[in-house]
Amino acid sequence: MEIAILLYDKFTALDCIGPYDVLRNMGANVTFVAEQRGEVRADSRMLGITADRSIDEVTSPDMLLIPGGFGTRALMAHQPIVEWIRAVHEHTQWTTSVCTGSLLLGAAGLLDGLDATTHWASSELLETTGARYTEQRWVRNGKIVTAAGVSAGIDMALMLVNEIAGEETAMAIQLGIEYDPQPPFDCGAVSKAPKELVDMLRPLMQAE
Amino acid sequence: MEIAILLYDKFTALDCIGPYDVLRNMGANVTFVAEQRGEVRADSRMLGITADRSIDEVTSPDMLLIPGGFGTRALMAHQPIVEWIRAVHEHTQWTTSVCTGSLLLGAAGLLDGLDATTHWASSELLETTGARYTEQRWVRNGKIVTAAGVSAGIDMALMLVNEIAGEETAMAIQLGIEYDPQPPFDCGAVSKAPKELVDMLRPLMQAE
Repeated sequence: MEIAILLYDKFTALDCIGPYDVLRNMGANVTFVAEQRGEVRADSRMLGITADRSIDEVTSPDMLLIPGGFGTRALMAHQPIVEWIRAVHEHTQWTTSVCTGSLLLGAAGLLDGLDATTHWASSELLETTGARYTEQRWVRNGKIVTAAGVSAGIDMALMLVNEIAGEETAMAIQLGIEYDPQPPFDCGAVSKAPKELVDMLRPLMQAE
Repeated sequence: MEIAILLYDKFTALDCIGPYDVLRNMGANVTFVAEQRGEVRADSRMLGITADRSIDEVTSPDMLLIPGGFGTRALMAHQPIVEWIRAVHEHTQWTTSVCTGSLLLGAAGLLDGLDATTHWASSELLETTGARYTEQRWVRNGKIVTAAGVSAGIDMALMLVNEIAGEETAMAIQLGIEYDPQPPFDCGAVSKAPKELVDMLRPLMQAE
């Protein structure tokens, strides 16, 4: 299985590395792709990941995964990327996003009229693409799957492995990455967090 | 706060990117470091991350974080890295590892006589360094903190933010990365997984 993960200026690294370290363990061939080959810097500017291929070189992956990041709002109007997503989607078995990556699926017209998710702070922006935001860990519509913010990509990827390779493989990968999460607080979703914290954080988390 | 994350040939990406995307959100300056500057390839060979600095350039970070990976066993006898870890540890406020990264702390003599953790499949190898393996999400000994396999680095990093920057910041980061984990199975630790799965996976997960 060929999986393409899109990189772009100001992506969020955990959005793609969580799913990558799940999906590659089922034996998939994962390729990091960007508009041009070479190093792409993450939103913090303190990290660079190599795009081994340009979008021109990757036209028919079996799975597309779009991470989120502060760079997504600007990219929604960037036709080379939006058109590539639309064209690649014609060939995929799975078209997926993590966090604000769903804004780019929306910009490509793929979420119109569908339930979908994104980072909670970008729910209104997602709805401008015609999607209906739902606060769920991930949302599936046939071959399109959108995951919630950042860390949700790990749960989505394990679900995808379960669908693609079966339960034993998915369980082996979950044990392999010792995914027995013990978060220190019960505040990782808007519905569970103190309202003041949500209000304080929302303006800081908007995609640029 | 200056945080150095060590990269080396065949590191596991999620081991460092989980903590990175937690720690950098408290305003820390995170630097990816390797024996030489430049791209370092992860254990899958399908991913490259840039080391922005060489170990010679980073001598006194406030926090050191050593990720695990299939390359750790070979590195235990590689003096330039082991000696750098030992020297840097003299200056740190925190010396930390994820997964088999603790094998390198052990090789540097930092875990002798201490409780510590690592990826479950490397527990015996860890004990050859004088550490006592414990199956916990993370183990703290003063300024030394070791986390369990791969995904455990996220939980450790949130604990560290709680210690360093306080509860409000740690909660904000947990909500910011929407860390409300919903793993599909309850098999992410050896004590919870079917024995046959553990036995099947153990020989495949040994550090090289």
